[in-house]
Amino acid sequence: MKFSYSNPTQIFFGQGQISAITRALDPQAKVLVIYGGGSIKKNGVYDQVASALKGFDWVEFSGVEPNPTKETLDKAVLIVKQQQINFILAVGGGSVIDGSKYVAAAAQYEGDGWDILTGKHQVNSATPLGAVLTLPATGSESNSGAVITKAETQDKLAFLSPYVQPKFAVMDPDVMKTLPEKQLLNGIVDAWVHVCEQYITRPTGAMVQDAYAEALLKTLKKLGERFADRDSDEWRANLMWAANQALNGLIGSGVPQDWATHMIGHELTALWHVDHARSLAIVQPSLLRNQIEFKRAKLEQMGREVFALQGDEQLAERTINAIEAFYHSMGVATQLTEHGDDKEAAIDAVISQLNNHGMVALTENQSVTPTEVKQILTAAIA
Amino acid sequence: MKFSYSNPTQIFFGQGQISAITRALDPQAKVLVIYGGGSIKKNGVYDQVASALKGFDWVEFSGVEPNPTKETLDKAVLIVKQQQINFILAVGGGSVIDGSKYVAAAAQYEGDGWDILTGKHQVNSATPLGAVLTLPATGSESNSGAVITKAETQDKLAFLSPYVQPKFAVMDPDVMKTLPEKQLLNGIVDAWVHVCEQYITRPTGAMVQDAYAEALLKTLKKLGERFADRDSDEWRANLMWAANQALNGLIGSGVPQDWATHMIGHELTALWHVDHARSLAIVQPSLLRNQIEFKRAKLEQMGREVFALQGDEQLAERTINAIEAFYHSMGVATQLTEHGDDKEAAIDAVISQLNNHGMVALTENQSVTPTEVKQILTAAIA
Repeated sequence: MKFSYSNPTQIFFGQGQISAITRALDPQAKVLVIYGGGSIKKNGVYDQVASALKGFDWVEFSGVEPNPTKETLDKAVLIVKQQQINFILAVGGGSVIDGSKYVAAAAQYEGDGWDILTGKHQVNSATPLGAVLTLPATGSESNSGAVITKAETQDKLAFLSPYVQPKFAVMDPDVMKTLPEKQLLNGIVDAWVHVCEQYITRPTGAMVQDAYAEALLKTLKKLGERFADRDSDEWRANLMWAANQALNGLIGSGVPQDWATHMIGHELTALWHVDHARSLAIVQPSLLRNQIEFKRAKLEQMGREVFALQGDEQLAERTINAIEAFYHSMGVATQLTEHGDDKEAAIDAVISQLNNHGMVALTENQSVTPTEVKQILTAAIA
Repeated sequence: MKFSYSNPTQIFFGQGQISAITRALDPQAKVLVIYGGGSIKKNGVYDQVASALKGFDWVEFSGVEPNPTKETLDKAVLIVKQQQINFILAVGGGSVIDGSKYVAAAAQYEGDGWDILTGKHQVNSATPLGAVLTLPATGSESNSGAVITKAETQDKLAFLSPYVQPKFAVMDPDVMKTLPEKQLLNGIVDAWVHVCEQYITRPTGAMVQDAYAEALLKTLKKLGERFADRDSDEWRANLMWAANQALNGLIGSGVPQDWATHMIGHELTALWHVDHARSLAIVQPSLLRNQIEFKRAKLEQMGREVFALQGDEQLAERTINAIEAFYHSMGVATQLTEHGDDKEAAIDAVISQLNNHGMVALTENQSVTPTEVKQILTAAIA
């Protein structure tokens, strides 16, 4: 077990914390506020942010879409460059925050921002940014990753850089009050799979990382089971904090990570606009069944610790069934139905896109090749 | 649940990481290396640090004692002031790192450093410091707290300041190879009680904080049970990481904290030089029994989640018994025997010292007053 870890993001968690922006910002900052489709104007978050920014020099950029596109974000890059913006405030969910990270990095680069996603350009500076989270799910508010889509080619790729880690993250659970049920469910599933990607690997003996992962999985499971309580302050605060912890680098420190479910899921989203979380629920059970021999020991551990399953017989298999049942209990489907009539063509399209992105040997074992992807999708596509 | 949290310390964890000091330091730094009684010269850590510091301008200060004293540390403060030191590297366990934090803060203050402990001076700057951990227990390597003793008056007090949080912490489990058994056991107990102080309070509904605390307690319990494995890389790495997580601010974010066991335990250490961890094991079971009605719900939860106790009957009482049995299983006593012949005088001495330090209403409920301290110590002192 060898790793380097730090998480310098200053968290402001709790009701009323949007006002903390005022003291978190340099009074001299020239701020670009980036947000999405305008829901923050309806639920009062925009007004709270504007109030916290009173006296600051700020402009805004709206219209960042779910699965944010390079094409849209490049317009914000131009604003940062032309208007001498020196701080970016992302107000939104994972898409807005991811998109703002792209803007922050691309604004300090002369070439095409997409080079950051392809790896042609290694990020070596970024406009500093902060985040006001409005949708708990991705953990983007306090990590260094972002996923960006190029609409033109339906490419959906990720990049990581410490330069784009938010300086601060405001997490006020009250912003969840107006979220539709579906987005809360997606948040649970997204955070759940984030934990799984860092946990259901080969066993490592890393007791704290394992037990933390199990702590988060048990918390998310209870939140799903107590979905009827979703209008309580307690439920909201717990989901917001659990989703943050699921992908802030801590539970993945020093242990192998898989991420194959995400890589395949990204293609389903890029091709058929499946919600990100739902793409994960579609891919994961089939992938786990396909890779069960690599993951048997950890699935058995998960079965005992998270689902309190008894006995040794077919324990890994029963754990996968329990994961699937958990999704179904929340009304989340585990088969793709958005792909049109031709199943074979759909599978080929995914494999072709994975090939285009150089993703031909996924999981920490490089054991999911196009052959396995075909097997996985044959089971995962209706 | 409302809190601010960040932990900016850069962790370098794993075998061979002492060499990371070289890249963590500014090449222009003038470094004071602070260490303890010289065990690092025998176990090779000093040589590894010296090798990592090759080419840097550095001097050293040794002789920081367990339960570090202001009197010793003030000599290091003088060195920092007189030799224009601009970085402090603490190489040791909690005592050396705590002591280095005092040096870092006192060196930027014109008055008597003890003012920092009494609260007369509020720390507003400190010489930056880093830590090379040699004894996992206190978590001091990545938090902002320190406990310092004034030998002259047998006062043992704590201070907290973000300015003294280490910039980096090197955690190489190999440094534990030469630790005596007793120090490893103390590390388990110290970390265990750190978690308990942030967990065995009133119930809060903070699911992640609770489940993380339970994750650490279960890990520490297993490490105690598997003490025979203490010479394995895996055991060492797990204790080192668990002890760090037990007091890095994370599990205590947004939840009530107790710390009465520590406050009373500090007086036992100041008066009779009881090891810090052992003072905690002496105080805690009696304190929990005394405060059981405030803590019943959380003790019941701990009984189920950490000790897998069944049934509801006397569950909180059985949990306290299980905690005590855990200490005994490691050969750690839960009664004080170092106080001489006069038990009444010993109790009075502790109460008098607590009074001197203004600690007359401890726990998050202020429910441990001198009356309760007397009851607790009557049970805790042989």
